[in-house]
Amino acid sequence: MSRDGLTKMTKIEVVVRGADVTGVRELIQAAGATGYTSVSGVSGLGHHGYHQGRLLFNEQDALALVITVVSDDAVEPLLAGLRPLLTERSGVMFVTDTYVSRPEYFR
Amino acid sequence: MSRDGLTKMTKIEVVVRGADVTGVRELIQAAGATGYTSVSGVSGLGHHGYHQGRLLFNEQDALALVITVVSDDAVEPLLAGLRPLLTERSGVMFVTDTYVSRPEYFR
Amino acid sequence: MSRDGLTKMTKIEVVVRGADVTGVRELIQAAGATGYTSVSGVSGLGHHGYHQGRLLFNEQDALALVITVVSDDAVEPLLAGLRPLLTERSGVMFVTDTYVSRPEYFR
Repeated sequence: MSRDGLTKMTKIEVVVRGADVTGVRELIQAAGATGYTSVSGVSGLGHHGYHQGRLLFNEQDALALVITVVSDDAVEPLLAGLRPLLTERSGVMFVTDTYVSRPEYFR
Repeated sequence: MSRDGLTKMTKIEVVVRGADVTGVRELIQAAGATGYTSVSGVSGLGHHGYHQGRLLFNEQDALALVITVVSDDAVEPLLAGLRPLLTERSGVMFVTDTYVSRPEYFR
Repeated sequence: MSRDGLTKMTKIEVVVRGADVTGVRELIQAAGATGYTSVSGVSGLGHHGYHQGRLLFNEQDALALVITVVSDDAVEPLLAGLRPLLTERSGVMFVTDTYVSRPEYFR
């Protein structure tokens, strides 16, 4: 896809318990990204939730969706930090191509 | 796009009235996906809302954004279920490529 | 990517102060798009926020995430309108490929 005047970046969305947002934010900043957007009061049912006998996302209003956009070279460090947190604390992340108009804003 | 250690999945986002979230959730589970994230208290104006003389999304705080991520083989069954619901009940859906680190978590 | 029965569109997500949502909405409508979804009560920290000595997104609960999906020919007019608003008022936008099942719904 060609998008005139736009730069390809990577959007990383993380769904975690509200208590884990601070940890996610610290990882985002440690990976060199300086911004994020957080939607709190999110509810959901965890993938494998009932199967594991472990209600990952059964706490209504206790989840948050954290969105950040990073340059491609920051993706691997951030994912490397997020993986153990998501395994230990329960959560999911989605990684998506996106485009921005001011890439310097995200560095 | 090559993303080391990540698996391509499909993110499906649905905007519906709060009263229709249960129906969307049932379709998600029937399609074999076990997880979703729901953002309530969303407002909006429906595409064609005023044009149709039918204020699709005019009820403030009455909408929800439901997000799920499914493996590619679950996309068609889920879309087949969502289409009639969205036509009948008014709503929109967006289908986007995304990548995850633990694909088994979404099956 | 081939997606049977789906049409490629462009999703534009904008994070702005709540007070700027009306301006974003007007730009969306001026670009020929008739629908949007708005998530209010979003918090975040702006990219370059602390670096600039300017706390872009430091007002808790004062931000909104506005999501719209437009046909490809509406992208450039909308971005042209959003750029100066985001520069002047502080905000970010993300532009992502997405697919919908009823493209006529978004025109």
